[in-house]
Amino acid sequence: MNIHFLTLFPEMYTGVLGSSILARAKEKEIVDYNLINFRDYSGNKHNKVDDYPYGGGAGMVLKPEPIFNAMDALELSDDARVILLCPQGAPFNQKKAEELSKEQEIVFICGHYEGYDERIRTLVTDEISIGDYVLTGGEVASMAMTDAIVRLIPGVLSREESHIEDSFSTGMLEHPHYTRPREFRGMKVPEVLLNGNHKDIDAWRLEESLKRTKERRPDLLE
Amino acid sequence: MNIHFLTLFPEMYTGVLGSSILARAKEKEIVDYNLINFRDYSGNKHNKVDDYPYGGGAGMVLKPEPIFNAMDALELSDDARVILLCPQGAPFNQKKAEELSKEQEIVFICGHYEGYDERIRTLVTDEISIGDYVLTGGEVASMAMTDAIVRLIPGVLSREESHIEDSFSTGMLEHPHYTRPREFRGMKVPEVLLNGNHKDIDAWRLEESLKRTKERRPDLLE
Repeated sequence: MNIHFLTLFPEMYTGVLGSSILARAKEKEIVDYNLINFRDYSGNKHNKVDDYPYGGGAGMVLKPEPIFNAMDALELSDDARVILLCPQGAPFNQKKAEELSKEQEIVFICGHYEGYDERIRTLVTDEISIGDYVLTGGEVASMAMTDAIVRLIPGVLSREESHIEDSFSTGMLEHPHYTRPREFRGMKVPEVLLNGNHKDIDAWRLEESLKRTKERRPDLLE
Repeated sequence: MNIHFLTLFPEMYTGVLGSSILARAKEKEIVDYNLINFRDYSGNKHNKVDDYPYGGGAGMVLKPEPIFNAMDALELSDDARVILLCPQGAPFNQKKAEELSKEQEIVFICGHYEGYDERIRTLVTDEISIGDYVLTGGEVASMAMTDAIVRLIPGVLSREESHIEDSFSTGMLEHPHYTRPREFRGMKVPEVLLNGNHKDIDAWRLEESLKRTKERRPDLLE
């Protein structure tokens, strides 16, 4: 999978793309990351990427030229997914992550501070928001999406790690986990987990999982 | 505000905390970031931070000692907010960001791959999820939250930037924006934005904002 990031802050990505699962996926040559500073495609000598909004109002608007020019230079495949990160987008979720993990080429367009000139939306296949909160730019949102997507590509996670994943696919929140020590600062591991009766353990875990989901996220059970 | 990040991957944060608004907030001494690798607090000579789950099953579980020891060393104020990032948490949103932006001290506990030993939850004031998707660890989630929170602290954004913010507080999605050029690749700026009649412009924007919200996020209008 090729993932392109159109951003004014390519240096923001170094730590996240260079660590853990995302770094490993690149080392294994399963994905490649391409950081593009679209300021380089401004098409004007002052490298201006934004301008005042027509009709007035506060804030600046991202000009169409830098994004269109950067996209032209990418020479994308016809079936590339082009994702605009914006608060107006469809909420990101695990189903969307699974769908996107099957793609060959993904572009993230990351605005920063500004609104997007509406014509930029004609370039995109998906408008996505990672949640109902305001971020300074699309950069961190694109990192979250990249993590959620790349870890689902076959070969990225080890078999052991993939098993952990399965527990999220039940549609319920996870049951509590305990590890050593058996007693820590007066808090003990529940007896049922220590007695080796796997039928009891499975029943306890299912019950706890259900209880936690009912308490915290009843919407997931609908 | 002091923000502490308990993580096994402190190097992931460099780009995000060192750029844009988050860097500026630190330069202005409005916030300070403290990265703690809790592996340094493992309390065992092999610096082991996880172990097998009691009761069996796939995956590893984060041991309680490293987190408790790191928290002890922090000597937090009594009213510090301690946030566990996990899929079982309450969904993060703008209201929560506003609430947290008024705090003096915030700790993010970021797991990675593993589940948390249940006893770690006794240390926290909030369990939060940034969305219904699976991330490899809490790091990127804590970055997203930090961005959403810090930008709301008075003095971080300029007055001009804060105005942009206001448009998100209407409870509706933003109307379309346009900037120069007036015509780009055959696509024209709507006439209403060019004629200088501010009553017409305001009416058009409200209508477009409402239309977009109805189409994409009817839940916001309820």
